[in-house]
Amino acid sequence: MRRVTRTARVTIARASRLLNFQKRHPPVGAPPGTLVFPEERVPATIRVMAYGPDGVEEREGVGVEELPGLLKPDRVTWIDLQGLGDEALLRRLGQIFEIHPLALEDVVNVPQRPKAEAYDRQHLVITRMTRAAADGPLDVEQVSLFIGQHYLLSIQERRGDVFDPVRVRIRAGKGLIRRSGPDYLAYALIDAILDGYYPVLEVLGDRLQGLEERILHGASRSGQLGIHRVRRDLLVLRRAVWPQHEAVAALVREETPLITSTVRQYLRDCLDHAVQILDVIDTYHELASNLMDMHLAAVSQRSNDVMKVLTVMASIFIPLTFIAGLYGMNFDYLPELHYRWAYPALLTLMGLVAGGMLLFFHRRGWLGGDEEDED
Amino acid sequence: MRRVTRTARVTIARASRLLNFQKRHPPVGAPPGTLVFPEERVPATIRVMAYGPDGVEEREGVGVEELPGLLKPDRVTWIDLQGLGDEALLRRLGQIFEIHPLALEDVVNVPQRPKAEAYDRQHLVITRMTRAAADGPLDVEQVSLFIGQHYLLSIQERRGDVFDPVRVRIRAGKGLIRRSGPDYLAYALIDAILDGYYPVLEVLGDRLQGLEERILHGASRSGQLGIHRVRRDLLVLRRAVWPQHEAVAALVREETPLITSTVRQYLRDCLDHAVQILDVIDTYHELASNLMDMHLAAVSQRSNDVMKVLTVMASIFIPLTFIAGLYGMNFDYLPELHYRWAYPALLTLMGLVAGGMLLFFHRRGWLGGDEEDED
Amino acid sequence: MRRVTRTARVTIARASRLLNFQKRHPPVGAPPGTLVFPEERVPATIRVMAYGPDGVEEREGVGVEELPGLLKPDRVTWIDLQGLGDEALLRRLGQIFEIHPLALEDVVNVPQRPKAEAYDRQHLVITRMTRAAADGPLDVEQVSLFIGQHYLLSIQERRGDVFDPVRVRIRAGKGLIRRSGPDYLAYALIDAILDGYYPVLEVLGDRLQGLEERILHGASRSGQLGIHRVRRDLLVLRRAVWPQHEAVAALVREETPLITSTVRQYLRDCLDHAVQILDVIDTYHELASNLMDMHLAAVSQRSNDVMKVLTVMASIFIPLTFIAGLYGMNFDYLPELHYRWAYPALLTLMGLVAGGMLLFFHRRGWLGGDEEDED
Amino acid sequence: MRRVTRTARVTIARASRLLNFQKRHPPVGAPPGTLVFPEERVPATIRVMAYGPDGVEEREGVGVEELPGLLKPDRVTWIDLQGLGDEALLRRLGQIFEIHPLALEDVVNVPQRPKAEAYDRQHLVITRMTRAAADGPLDVEQVSLFIGQHYLLSIQERRGDVFDPVRVRIRAGKGLIRRSGPDYLAYALIDAILDGYYPVLEVLGDRLQGLEERILHGASRSGQLGIHRVRRDLLVLRRAVWPQHEAVAALVREETPLITSTVRQYLRDCLDHAVQILDVIDTYHELASNLMDMHLAAVSQRSNDVMKVLTVMASIFIPLTFIAGLYGMNFDYLPELHYRWAYPALLTLMGLVAGGMLLFFHRRGWLGGDEEDED
Amino acid sequence: MRRVTRTARVTIARASRLLNFQKRHPPVGAPPGTLVFPEERVPATIRVMAYGPDGVEEREGVGVEELPGLLKPDRVTWIDLQGLGDEALLRRLGQIFEIHPLALEDVVNVPQRPKAEAYDRQHLVITRMTRAAADGPLDVEQVSLFIGQHYLLSIQERRGDVFDPVRVRIRAGKGLIRRSGPDYLAYALIDAILDGYYPVLEVLGDRLQGLEERILHGASRSGQLGIHRVRRDLLVLRRAVWPQHEAVAALVREETPLITSTVRQYLRDCLDHAVQILDVIDTYHELASNLMDMHLAAVSQRSNDVMKVLTVMASIFIPLTFIAGLYGMNFDYLPELHYRWAYPALLTLMGLVAGGMLLFFHRRGWLGGDEEDED
Repeated sequence: MRRVTRTARVTIARASRLLNFQKRHPPVGAPPGTLVFPEERVPATIRVMAYGPDGVEEREGVGVEELPGLLKPDRVTWIDLQGLGDEALLRRLGQIFEIHPLALEDVVNVPQRPKAEAYDRQHLVITRMTRAAADGPLDVEQVSLFIGQHYLLSIQERRGDVFDPVRVRIRAGKGLIRRSGPDYLAYALIDAILDGYYPVLEVLGDRLQGLEERILHGASRSGQLGIHRVRRDLLVLRRAVWPQHEAVAALVREETPLITSTVRQYLRDCLDHAVQILDVIDTYHELASNLMDMHLAAVSQRSNDVMKVLTVMASIFIPLTFIAGLYGMNFDYLPELHYRWAYPALLTLMGLVAGGMLLFFHRRGWLGGDEEDED
Repeated sequence: MRRVTRTARVTIARASRLLNFQKRHPPVGAPPGTLVFPEERVPATIRVMAYGPDGVEEREGVGVEELPGLLKPDRVTWIDLQGLGDEALLRRLGQIFEIHPLALEDVVNVPQRPKAEAYDRQHLVITRMTRAAADGPLDVEQVSLFIGQHYLLSIQERRGDVFDPVRVRIRAGKGLIRRSGPDYLAYALIDAILDGYYPVLEVLGDRLQGLEERILHGASRSGQLGIHRVRRDLLVLRRAVWPQHEAVAALVREETPLITSTVRQYLRDCLDHAVQILDVIDTYHELASNLMDMHLAAVSQRSNDVMKVLTVMASIFIPLTFIAGLYGMNFDYLPELHYRWAYPALLTLMGLVAGGMLLFFHRRGWLGGDEEDED
Repeated sequence: MRRVTRTARVTIARASRLLNFQKRHPPVGAPPGTLVFPEERVPATIRVMAYGPDGVEEREGVGVEELPGLLKPDRVTWIDLQGLGDEALLRRLGQIFEIHPLALEDVVNVPQRPKAEAYDRQHLVITRMTRAAADGPLDVEQVSLFIGQHYLLSIQERRGDVFDPVRVRIRAGKGLIRRSGPDYLAYALIDAILDGYYPVLEVLGDRLQGLEERILHGASRSGQLGIHRVRRDLLVLRRAVWPQHEAVAALVREETPLITSTVRQYLRDCLDHAVQILDVIDTYHELASNLMDMHLAAVSQRSNDVMKVLTVMASIFIPLTFIAGLYGMNFDYLPELHYRWAYPALLTLMGLVAGGMLLFFHRRGWLGGDEEDED
Repeated sequence: MRRVTRTARVTIARASRLLNFQKRHPPVGAPPGTLVFPEERVPATIRVMAYGPDGVEEREGVGVEELPGLLKPDRVTWIDLQGLGDEALLRRLGQIFEIHPLALEDVVNVPQRPKAEAYDRQHLVITRMTRAAADGPLDVEQVSLFIGQHYLLSIQERRGDVFDPVRVRIRAGKGLIRRSGPDYLAYALIDAILDGYYPVLEVLGDRLQGLEERILHGASRSGQLGIHRVRRDLLVLRRAVWPQHEAVAALVREETPLITSTVRQYLRDCLDHAVQILDVIDTYHELASNLMDMHLAAVSQRSNDVMKVLTVMASIFIPLTFIAGLYGMNFDYLPELHYRWAYPALLTLMGLVAGGMLLFFHRRGWLGGDEEDED
Repeated sequence: MRRVTRTARVTIARASRLLNFQKRHPPVGAPPGTLVFPEERVPATIRVMAYGPDGVEEREGVGVEELPGLLKPDRVTWIDLQGLGDEALLRRLGQIFEIHPLALEDVVNVPQRPKAEAYDRQHLVITRMTRAAADGPLDVEQVSLFIGQHYLLSIQERRGDVFDPVRVRIRAGKGLIRRSGPDYLAYALIDAILDGYYPVLEVLGDRLQGLEERILHGASRSGQLGIHRVRRDLLVLRRAVWPQHEAVAALVREETPLITSTVRQYLRDCLDHAVQILDVIDTYHELASNLMDMHLAAVSQRSNDVMKVLTVMASIFIPLTFIAGLYGMNFDYLPELHYRWAYPALLTLMGLVAGGMLLFFHRRGWLGGDEEDED
């Protein structure tokens, strides 16, 4: 029992972090733009990649005051901030890039609902990044992208991301990425984030497969708990992907000079991926519901099986016991007791009763019902 | 049993107050504009805050006839009325501010569906304010806001609100609030009201967490009642937030000179919050439904467990009892009774029968099924 | 059983009258405009109220041929017909007011789906009126309103309505009603009809409250039947209110000179009421479904409780009975029978077995499970 | 069992005919316009009614080559073909009326989804006609209407229809029908088809009423099967009516010279009927689902009742049997056996035990639970 | 058990292939246009059919470099590629036909969501082709069509398709196909693909029919598994057909010179077929859900039946056994033992008790309940 409880606590805590916003919403009635910093402050580090068709300049651990000097109109500068722990730095960043206070609030007060919003100087895209974990809890993290004229500012909740392949492509200089603007970079990052959902769905698919086998083998309690957890994880994923899909659709639709029509076509491809992910999530959800139905039916079926055994045993032996009891009575005048053939005759009668019973149950298919049903 | 009933009565009464309108709708066929006053008349008090960039003037317990003198075009006057108990005062207020009779009816005949409506001289926004109560019933109260040219008139059902932080910001004079008009004040109040839903959802989240643990430990009756109550509270919250979301969306959309485009952008942020609250409510609702499924499956599983114990016990001992009864019979000619080895042989037979039964049940996994299932 | 059946018959008959149209649809393939008169012919009576700002003229039992003389362009004439039993009268009415045959068909072949339709000379609004009945069946009746240039023609299925307060307001001459046209009168009647739903919903709310208490006290069969009936009544109400809401929305939207913009604003208020009524109906419907869930869970729980008692009793006494049976055997060589300490020893053993069983069940929480669950 | 199976086969076969298209879809990859004729070829007969304001000419068994001569611009010619069995005739018909190959395919390869489509020379309306059968299976048949300039061509799957009243109206010459064009005739036929659904719904309503009574009397197996069948029939009807409603709506909306605005108003009335039929279908569907819930709850309740009887019987007699067994033991030293008062004392004890048990069960309400629940 | 598991594994594997994209999505963050080739590489073969009104040229095993020479403006060239196993060939194909990298990615990284997309030089339609397999798993394969100016390029995942009838029609030269452009060919292929769903649905319909009979005969475990599988297959089909329907609708709607208005009318017919297929899928899905309800009710009913037998047996014999036990007691003073008439009297009493019990159960309808329910 203990063990179940501990897992349950983890499950709930995980859901709370994802669905809820405990301790992270601003105090009631706080002025707009109030920043609420997470309790476990992840120290912030800035990494800059500046590139153009001709070359790449890459630096880690950049100080916030160096940033204005790094922005140049003839190249794309990708400022990648990881960790929301440094309040002063974030406020200063807001000043440097002239970020609207409401936009900064959305970036810091994680988790926000994914969305795309146009501001005067930037286009803000809020997304949720996930990474597969073989067996552990879902790990979902907010990534905010500010698409500016010559720069892209990405702000991540924690360290670690799914962007390394994009970095590799920038360094390699193959494809369109070095010859395009920050809008293409934003597309590449959003695409990487959406790609990150595929392995997570694979893990869930494997778990569903395992659950189905377990339930087909017998209605175990762990199967029921497993379905509950898969359904919850799918719920979390759906809530993460659905608004993301809406945000990308808004990017495709919106008329903004910050996003070129070429990139818009690539984003249309992203949209297809998002829809496909939602399709899979919905399908898995229906599969999980079907499994729950099967589990409930299996539990009922098993109760039925248990009861059949009880009924067969009791129905055969209770009458026999009664007959035996009858001739265990101590009446003075109980004539059958004195016949020589009485005992063998009684044994025969008992055998007939038991046989009749067995025949009755056999006809109803209550004997060995398990095997018969399975072919 | 008593205790449950008492709680049930409270639960229902609470729901009635929120969902129903017992005793508060006007008599059937009453002319439009009929005011129906609550039975428990909360005496009305007026508090006025008048402010501009240069300063704040604050007064409590203002008489209704003083109000016209307090309105000045060069500053924002916030008239805050708490309590709907004074009929004459409300009618006089309607005259002073030239409120449309239908608007006044909506304000007084609480609860109305939240909405935003444009009248000739004001914009009316009807909202529902809630405050978290650790364990008690949901407390939902109607707050109506009239946004006028130079004033904001807020009318609350009862004393007590979530607006103190807004008052503090007005007094402190930081941020935009002192330099903006009554539309920004309206935004600040709506935002405070929406922020007030977050702690309520936290409480519900905690209750769901507690329920899940309880149900994982065993399908208790209190768990079932708890899910029922959470679902009802979520129902109430959804009905309160959904039209509010629509009302804010209408404010964002509508073309009215009373709301500036800057404030409209802030309201767009409110809209995001409302959508997020709805998301959480829906997610909690699905979690609660999943828990109900798990509870039902757990009850079935437990019946199964109970039945297994009964079946094992009965199936082992009923045949043995029959055998014992057989040799308790008093037939004169029952040869086995006279063999010396009969008794030990019979004991051995009985042991074999019992052992066979145990083996049969062990193979089916009916012995100690609980423990085996849990890893 | 008898009693239940009788109630069931009433329930069904009630539903049929509301949902179905048994015997009331025209013969298949009948030409449009075929009038089907109800079997139980309610004789028709006409009541006329003619009013203007200066006075009211009121007459009952008016003959149909007098009507043309009563219509005057400088006042509003409200012709109120109750009872659809007089075919000739209805046809003559159709001629006098130049009613389109399809419109007349809709008025007579009750029940029609509520709707608002513009014809050349009138605007037709079909509504459903209901009146609360403490415990009896829902009473729903069709009321059709023809809004003309200077008159309003209302046609009711049966005698008795919810319009008396409107009549009182006309006589009293307070408010807008005497100074407005037939469109305002139509609004007043529609408003009265919608107001009539509130007490009906109160009755349903009370029934739900009673059902919840009954189900919390124990899963009684009457609770289940009660939920079934409440759900059916809510179904009927929803089907009545939903198209009515659509009809009022159409009135608000439509461009017709017969309805002034002032009245349109009042109708907007009606629309709010209709939405609120739908909200309450939907909420009650979800509450009823939650109650059904709780009822099902309670039945399962009770089966569980019954089975626990059986299992405890059987598991304790069946082994003991076996032991007793063992020493009731009549073997010649059964040594234990002859030891002096055998009987007390056996009693002790039996006590130990019973105690062990009790301990086992206590650990599983199967003894007095009821009380433990309830805190 | 046999009987159930036979009925089941009929049920399925019926559903297959309606929902599926077994043997009737063209071979995969067939060119468009491939005609697939039904296996049971109903020979085709043509009946012509030509009418104008001045008179009616009616002929049965018309040859297809006579048709061109019968079409005249100064009257309406209604060509009514019944039976799809004559391939050559249908192809020739297509040539005479210049029917698009895809249109002809839709007419012959029944069942098609009801729809309204504009072609160059005709407007095609595909509908489904049904006729009530007291107890037998639903009988649904496709009727296709080609509305031309001066003619209406109706093609029915089989003989027999619901159009006789329309024919009577044409002969009688009352109403608009003789003075209107083929569009009005089309309306009259569509209206007759929709009217034909009302008696079918009445039959379903009666079946639901019967089922409710049966389920209230006890959860019989036949009730469950009955609900299953009603739900399936409602499914079939909904699939038939819903696209028909869409088709009529398209007719009302579409701008085509073939349909006059007068007839459009009549079609708007048809639309109301279709919506009402859908309303009734949906309501019946919800009633059927509620009945299924009640049935499931009733089965659970009955199991509970059965188990209560078992538990009461077993709990009372098992302990008594144990006590009796105790004093049936054959120990030499069993002192109680020799007391004179032992037997009466034991009987008293047994009575007390039984009485205590009964009291316990009475307190729990397990005795005669049935009756108590019903008031 | 083994057997079930093996089937389960197949079931899951099948679902994974269809719903999931295991091993087939590009590595996370891969640049757009990354091609991921299937593990089991099906070697690619190209087959060309070039035709015009005057003749057909047909070649198999064409090399990719020959293709440019085969395209001529005065005829339609259908390049049909089967198998995605040859990477170089596919890249070269992309160059020859100037295919957009994103389009090529969609074609190779199967399965993609069906869709229609306009590119500069082609219109891409992605579809899913299925072929019925009597009893085996669903076989779904992606077919991509590039509609160009004078050519149609079709790319199939594997060998084998449903296009043979189209090839026959081209060779035969009947109908429109030889006189039309590649857009008509595309329509013919899409139509053949949609036609391919009908036999699959027939197989599912047969399976549902079999399941219903099995469930009516008794709630077997295999029935439950069967419903689970049918529901899963329907899920897969729905996910395949729904976006296909959207894609065809987009083709009908879109303004592109590549598709003529004549072909657009034919595509409208395709759309009708897709809607009909979706209708059947939804109907089958509801039928399957109804069957699951019936199955669950049948399991409950069977438990009830089992319990009735147990209750009847136990209730009759347990009291009798007690009475017999009573007179098996060995009290010295047990007067009844010595009366001559005691034994026959007791037998009579026992008969009366058993008879009373039987009467009680008969009244409740617990004896032979099965038969009685079925009429």
